[in-house]
Amino acid sequence: MARIAYVNGRYVDHALASVHIEDRGYQFSDGIYEYIAFYNGKLLDADAHFKRLERSLNELEIGFPVAASALGIIVRELIERNGRDDGGLYIQVTRGTAKRDHVFPKNARPALVMTVCGAKTPKPHEFSDGVKVITQPDRRWARRDIKSVSLLANILAKQEAARQKVREALLMEADGTINEGSASNMFIVTKSGVLLTHPADENILGGITRDVVLKLARKVGIEVEERAFSVAEAKNAAEAFITSTSINVLPVVKIDDRLVAGGKVGEVTKKLGEIYNAHIYKQTGKVMS
Amino acid sequence: MARIAYVNGRYVDHALASVHIEDRGYQFSDGIYEYIAFYNGKLLDADAHFKRLERSLNELEIGFPVAASALGIIVRELIERNGRDDGGLYIQVTRGTAKRDHVFPKNARPALVMTVCGAKTPKPHEFSDGVKVITQPDRRWARRDIKSVSLLANILAKQEAARQKVREALLMEADGTINEGSASNMFIVTKSGVLLTHPADENILGGITRDVVLKLARKVGIEVEERAFSVAEAKNAAEAFITSTSINVLPVVKIDDRLVAGGKVGEVTKKLGEIYNAHIYKQTGKVMS
Repeated sequence: MARIAYVNGRYVDHALASVHIEDRGYQFSDGIYEYIAFYNGKLLDADAHFKRLERSLNELEIGFPVAASALGIIVRELIERNGRDDGGLYIQVTRGTAKRDHVFPKNARPALVMTVCGAKTPKPHEFSDGVKVITQPDRRWARRDIKSVSLLANILAKQEAARQKVREALLMEADGTINEGSASNMFIVTKSGVLLTHPADENILGGITRDVVLKLARKVGIEVEERAFSVAEAKNAAEAFITSTSINVLPVVKIDDRLVAGGKVGEVTKKLGEIYNAHIYKQTGKVMS
Repeated sequence: MARIAYVNGRYVDHALASVHIEDRGYQFSDGIYEYIAFYNGKLLDADAHFKRLERSLNELEIGFPVAASALGIIVRELIERNGRDDGGLYIQVTRGTAKRDHVFPKNARPALVMTVCGAKTPKPHEFSDGVKVITQPDRRWARRDIKSVSLLANILAKQEAARQKVREALLMEADGTINEGSASNMFIVTKSGVLLTHPADENILGGITRDVVLKLARKVGIEVEERAFSVAEAKNAAEAFITSTSINVLPVVKIDDRLVAGGKVGEVTKKLGEIYNAHIYKQTGKVMS
């Protein structure tokens, strides 16, 4: 089946899908995005993703490119045309095309691009054995709470992780505090059993999976605290894991040169992974292995 | 005369010029740019701009999209096809088009886009009367020395300046130090006659006009110091101005609510403006008014 993209009102062959060279996304990274997983053709946590999309647009004063009701219809049509049951929906909205000038253009129309891709779920052994991560300085701009396409700092950190053959790079402030991963949120479980993650302030992109995991953890009686923690705390934690729309709940067993909890995947992490999989099943009917 | 753009090997009608939706410039701001002024069809300080272009590419490990010798030929051809004597050449290079993934793609070819536009020289009264600027927190990423298209923080600062009907926003650290403008470098002249500007480290984009002005100032015996200075120092300075490829040497007479030197354009600033205009004339034969 052909891969089809949606570009400003048209469904087009993915290979030929293009935007103007003066689209402000291309020239200024003046745009935002969302990535939503779908299983059995059903979007996971769609409302939360669309709400965040709207928030990102509002923060940058970019208008909504199509009516919210129309967006839902286009998304369904796009997923159907791509003939995939499970996968990911990528949505990008930019301020539109205008003569190059830093100042917001007066008459540009927000541009909407959507693509569908295969699921990016980690391999089974990554879930069962856990993954390694490294720490990197957080070089991103100050508004990490906006899901913008201004991702150059994220890319460079992730590339360093790839170079060191590990799964993710944790982004760290000069004081040793971990904000989050380059494309994930970071959690630890302290030795006294408290689940810790960074508060959803301007220093992190408040992940949808992060929010769901926090909610599910509280529901099963796990004590939760949202506060910044240091790399040293993470290395000495009882358990550690990262979350995102594509990796779900992924155990971390090594940070830099230091094994976390002797390199074993923790029980709280396993439990939250199972509960999160149940959350996916409940919404979409998909059994995660 | 039609406006022509150069896109990956082809000269195309500007209105139809496009890049793929998975160009990494569009999805990740994974690219860099240069803007070079030309007068009488001759590029100003071309070598310095091409050298900086190469440095930006090297810092991001993006390959050179065409041979340096070919680039010169393409540029000349593009300017000729656009039929402009005076104007600006915009060059953007991204890591190329690849399946969306943070990690650098293995086989992507760097993408080269170039456009030509009219000169963006400020109005005569802006040079004679000076301009107003505001201060804004510097929210950019840490590598400001790379001329990347990761410009969202710059845009938001410039938009705030436009909203307040002033020319530029000076980007300030939390400690009150001014790094530079959102699209310019900042200079002051102290009451003892020393020309000050921020050192060309990772906190600023080392402007080509900045370098030329420093060199010309030293040549005529002006004492120059490259060090960080505060907003308070700037407001109390004897003179202030900003520089860039499009604004040349532009006097600043007001910072936030405070007039600089009673709102009068300073003598050193005027002199440097004249010397800079002579520099343009010497290279291109263009008489700046």
